[in-house]
Amino acid sequence: MSQSTAMQRVVIDNVSPAVDGGRFPIKRIVGESVLVSADIFADGHDELDVLLLHRSTTADEWTETPMSLDVNDRWYGAFDLETIGHYEYSIIAWVDPFKSWATKLTKRVGAGQDTTVDLEIGANILEESSSRATGDDAIRLLQLASALRMDGHSREEAETAALGDECATLASAYADRTNATTCDVAFGVTVDRRRALFSSWYEMFPRSCSPTPGAHGTLRDCEARLPYVAELGFNVLYLPPIHPVGLTARKGSNNSVTSAQGDPGTPWAIGSAEGGHKSIHPELGTLADFRHLLEAAGSYGIEIALDIALQCSPDHPYVTKHPDWFHWRPDGTVQYAENPPKKYQDIYPLEFDTDDWPALWQELKSIFEFWIDQGVRIFRVDNPHTKPFAFWEWLIVSLKAKHPDLIFLAEAFTRPRVMQRLAKLGFSQSYTYFTWRRSKWELVEYATELTTTDVSEYFRPNFWPNTPDILMDYLQEGGTPSFKARLVLAATLSSNFGIYGPAFELCVNTPREEGSEEYLNSEKYEIKHWDLQSPDSIRDVVARVNTIRAAHPALQRTNNLTIHEIENDQLIAYSKIDEQTNDLILTVVNIDPWHTQSGWIRTDFGALGIDQGTQFTVRDLLNGNTYTWRGMHNFIELNPNEMPAHIFEVVVPTLEKNT
Amino acid sequence: MSQSTAMQRVVIDNVSPAVDGGRFPIKRIVGESVLVSADIFADGHDELDVLLLHRSTTADEWTETPMSLDVNDRWYGAFDLETIGHYEYSIIAWVDPFKSWATKLTKRVGAGQDTTVDLEIGANILEESSSRATGDDAIRLLQLASALRMDGHSREEAETAALGDECATLASAYADRTNATTCDVAFGVTVDRRRALFSSWYEMFPRSCSPTPGAHGTLRDCEARLPYVAELGFNVLYLPPIHPVGLTARKGSNNSVTSAQGDPGTPWAIGSAEGGHKSIHPELGTLADFRHLLEAAGSYGIEIALDIALQCSPDHPYVTKHPDWFHWRPDGTVQYAENPPKKYQDIYPLEFDTDDWPALWQELKSIFEFWIDQGVRIFRVDNPHTKPFAFWEWLIVSLKAKHPDLIFLAEAFTRPRVMQRLAKLGFSQSYTYFTWRRSKWELVEYATELTTTDVSEYFRPNFWPNTPDILMDYLQEGGTPSFKARLVLAATLSSNFGIYGPAFELCVNTPREEGSEEYLNSEKYEIKHWDLQSPDSIRDVVARVNTIRAAHPALQRTNNLTIHEIENDQLIAYSKIDEQTNDLILTVVNIDPWHTQSGWIRTDFGALGIDQGTQFTVRDLLNGNTYTWRGMHNFIELNPNEMPAHIFEVVVPTLEKNT
Repeated sequence: MSQSTAMQRVVIDNVSPAVDGGRFPIKRIVGESVLVSADIFADGHDELDVLLLHRSTTADEWTETPMSLDVNDRWYGAFDLETIGHYEYSIIAWVDPFKSWATKLTKRVGAGQDTTVDLEIGANILEESSSRATGDDAIRLLQLASALRMDGHSREEAETAALGDECATLASAYADRTNATTCDVAFGVTVDRRRALFSSWYEMFPRSCSPTPGAHGTLRDCEARLPYVAELGFNVLYLPPIHPVGLTARKGSNNSVTSAQGDPGTPWAIGSAEGGHKSIHPELGTLADFRHLLEAAGSYGIEIALDIALQCSPDHPYVTKHPDWFHWRPDGTVQYAENPPKKYQDIYPLEFDTDDWPALWQELKSIFEFWIDQGVRIFRVDNPHTKPFAFWEWLIVSLKAKHPDLIFLAEAFTRPRVMQRLAKLGFSQSYTYFTWRRSKWELVEYATELTTTDVSEYFRPNFWPNTPDILMDYLQEGGTPSFKARLVLAATLSSNFGIYGPAFELCVNTPREEGSEEYLNSEKYEIKHWDLQSPDSIRDVVARVNTIRAAHPALQRTNNLTIHEIENDQLIAYSKIDEQTNDLILTVVNIDPWHTQSGWIRTDFGALGIDQGTQFTVRDLLNGNTYTWRGMHNFIELNPNEMPAHIFEVVVPTLEKNT
Repeated sequence: MSQSTAMQRVVIDNVSPAVDGGRFPIKRIVGESVLVSADIFADGHDELDVLLLHRSTTADEWTETPMSLDVNDRWYGAFDLETIGHYEYSIIAWVDPFKSWATKLTKRVGAGQDTTVDLEIGANILEESSSRATGDDAIRLLQLASALRMDGHSREEAETAALGDECATLASAYADRTNATTCDVAFGVTVDRRRALFSSWYEMFPRSCSPTPGAHGTLRDCEARLPYVAELGFNVLYLPPIHPVGLTARKGSNNSVTSAQGDPGTPWAIGSAEGGHKSIHPELGTLADFRHLLEAAGSYGIEIALDIALQCSPDHPYVTKHPDWFHWRPDGTVQYAENPPKKYQDIYPLEFDTDDWPALWQELKSIFEFWIDQGVRIFRVDNPHTKPFAFWEWLIVSLKAKHPDLIFLAEAFTRPRVMQRLAKLGFSQSYTYFTWRRSKWELVEYATELTTTDVSEYFRPNFWPNTPDILMDYLQEGGTPSFKARLVLAATLSSNFGIYGPAFELCVNTPREEGSEEYLNSEKYEIKHWDLQSPDSIRDVVARVNTIRAAHPALQRTNNLTIHEIENDQLIAYSKIDEQTNDLILTVVNIDPWHTQSGWIRTDFGALGIDQGTQFTVRDLLNGNTYTWRGMHNFIELNPNEMPAHIFEVVVPTLEKNT
């Protein structure tokens, strides 16, 4: 056994937070702090020095902060995240001979024992520390050693000096760390900007933005739609792929195998003679138009998110320039995408494990870099779960090293472990099962899993009530009240949420056929002309909800969720608090779109000073009504035909608002 | 990124069982099997090959066993532990191109699609596998490839061959593992002999074994006591240190600072002019006597456990031969053991971090080796938590590498994390907080933690109702009924248990003073003469309980515990089942030593086929009475003055006994 292994007495164990023992970083946003804890102990009864280490990049020096013992050998410390990018943290701990000695001395003094020899031992420890110190500290340590030896001091003075803070602090500062223990790994933190945690997405097909029915919309039309999107309160405008659409095997309306003259094809069949992933579909406009849109959006506080789908139409330039990036069948054809017996003849998957993979992966990375150069900072990634994990980790880590403000949303509607892995690898946000969870127990169970388990350290949910692919049964059945309920659930359960519009606010809910979750005449295959001014639109509710989100810090985080009991399976109640501002929001949703539902809610705000008899006020931010409540049990009634939800601001008398 | 990192598509995550991610081995006994599970998945929808690897030592070849997918990407596999010693396990997994292809082919065939080109692709995969195969398998793979190409076969025949087991099995057996994923670590298993999990300890001071009152007992007297110990049913006889006792600063009765003439001192003050840790106290006898005792004990099925206390009296030969193994104070004295303000002047701790530590550690190891050479295989280690963790790991791992039948019991009554660490490092069994847990909720909570959390993978509890150091308040207050209750609790909750006798069976319960948990006139400082035939002895109950333990496999394991509800805070009920033999034991204990307690027990044996109305029999193994029970709720009444416990054998009609 080596000297260092043999002499390392302190154990550092069970460090939290940690994703897979430190293999992956936790996720935070700038301005937050990280609370680190660990089991730290040594043999015997000696006192420990424990320091939390952190640094903002691997190149920087470590900053040291003392950790404190709570109970049961659990130590705590914290550090602040001041910049976006990558942080690391670790722990160092050692047995502190001076503190151990001082603890015993206190007991000896208390028992009135002779401390002459003990004081000499303490003086020796201080002298030894002095040998590692420099300047004034070195001199002061020698002076203190001398005091402990009672040179010109009484025993009482020597004991008082020995047990004072100065001795302990200086001795610890210059302790011998030769046998200190540090964590085996440095734990990482991905520090994102705030929008990674608080974002409101609006998905819109630019080609459906023309004011002229039937005409192919342009990026300029899309730009003209910005005031509408801003009025609805969204801060991310997400565009499905804007690249040239393939012609070969183009799909027609409702995904028919043959397309009619003039069918635009699906935007996810990327690439034609006019270019690939770095080109813009000519009918949409030019790169200059795109940059103009980006700038105009910025003036509304809206960011453009691009959809990156790493797949090709048969007409993509890659197919002829890099045939070895595709999988060729023995009959001399390229393998198109399939989920047998379903066939997607208009889409060729890329062969990520081609022998030429280094060139392919670099080229794919350059697609992101191209759009980053145009000013894009948010990417919605299509089907990342069908591409290798190693590719994503390499891509995201290397791109974020240069551009720490990038945000990646993973569109992986797949098995939980795969979705979690993609989040661990670096995706900033993730689509979720919220899109299918409709009953109270499903929603409560899922929200609890996402916000209270280890998953909450790395997986940032983005809740979508609908997507162009998913029109959930509940929306098909429940009509307008169900759209309002899903809107409120998505927007208040998760600080990241999005809708596919205008289909959502227009409450479009006709499926292609009974039992299907595809839209009838889906916008994926057709240019639509939406009547934004329809009297059936719930755009005012959408705008109201987004205004509430923008005004209330409690709704700008996700992991601050508390579920409350309410004795009705059709009513869901939960609250969020932001401790910085004392902002407390209580949401109650009636998920029955047909009937008024009522029940007694049990809100345990005891920690906020609301006891059995306390009277307090809740104000419904959706309709402005104010109610006086008392104690823990209060009555709720929600008529879905008026509004299936309350979003209450809880005015707690004992909480002073900090705004 | 390296080729291998880039091409490794499979993730193996969250392997269970694992202690600290594989840093420490799990513990099992020979004959058990290890059920291994992990989250295993790749990108996309391809099929995986997953093999569990295991080997009995690091030198052996791995044995491969297929794992099976359960749900949610969780895979399971198992292997048997056939010998004591060290096992390792790991997992290897890769994407299986043939299985992935076959899954798609099945769907194509089902949809009636043309499979000509697909069969050619499958044939190519088989041919490729053939290139890695040898002999008949290589030839057969080529034949199968040919069949898939429809050489002389119909399409239906080709499809049938393609989807048969033979193709899949052979292709998998010769799959390309270049890009396979294996676990980062090999997970360890310490495989102990059965007594590590099922042992009944009797602690006895040999010097108190003389038939003559006041005389110093000998090892020969101790040998004469063997029939008594055997009659009580114990299989481990644990002797406090048997080495020469120091004279300097020897403690007198009741731990007084000065000893009177003839006081024997504490056996834990080890070493005198007559020798140290490798010598036997002359008044006890000779090494030959010791070997004789060992052999005699063996004839009763009893093993001798020695107490190893790595500390010295001031008279230990080490003090003069190796002064640098001790801590010297500035006044030229050796630092004795202290827990200020308490002083243990008769004991010098060893300085484990002395510059000469390699020689010290080797010498300490040689103490164990000396007694191993005499035939000792079980060591009770005194206060291991005051010696470095690194020392114990090195010591136990290296000793068990040569002697895998060794059993180490850690006497660490300290903080939970420290006790757990010692167990992780290699101690086979551990003393526990049972010794102080008296209320129902404390016992239930503690037993649940020990048997159902990760702790159960490496921490084997050994439950002691008393020790020479600990006479718990409950025994002081409750008298004989409390001794019976604690006996039954210890012996049926934990498959390892022990008592300090004869003080236990004689129900000795007078403390040194009010509020103390030290015995009055403790045997630690005095030679005792016990009246084994006292009418107050509960030796018959002890014997009965041990007989029950020996006859019932359900009581020979600990982690098979199920707590049952019973509506009385003074009644504790729990069961254990051994599935191999269908042995089911239900224990109920009245922990109120003063009053008869009764209540309805809720035994959910639904899994055993006992439904609401089923009638079944329980037989109290303590008194032989048989009761007929029906369904889940049955009535219990226990009078502590008769017997404060039932140990029921549950005779379930649907369970056939395998004995």
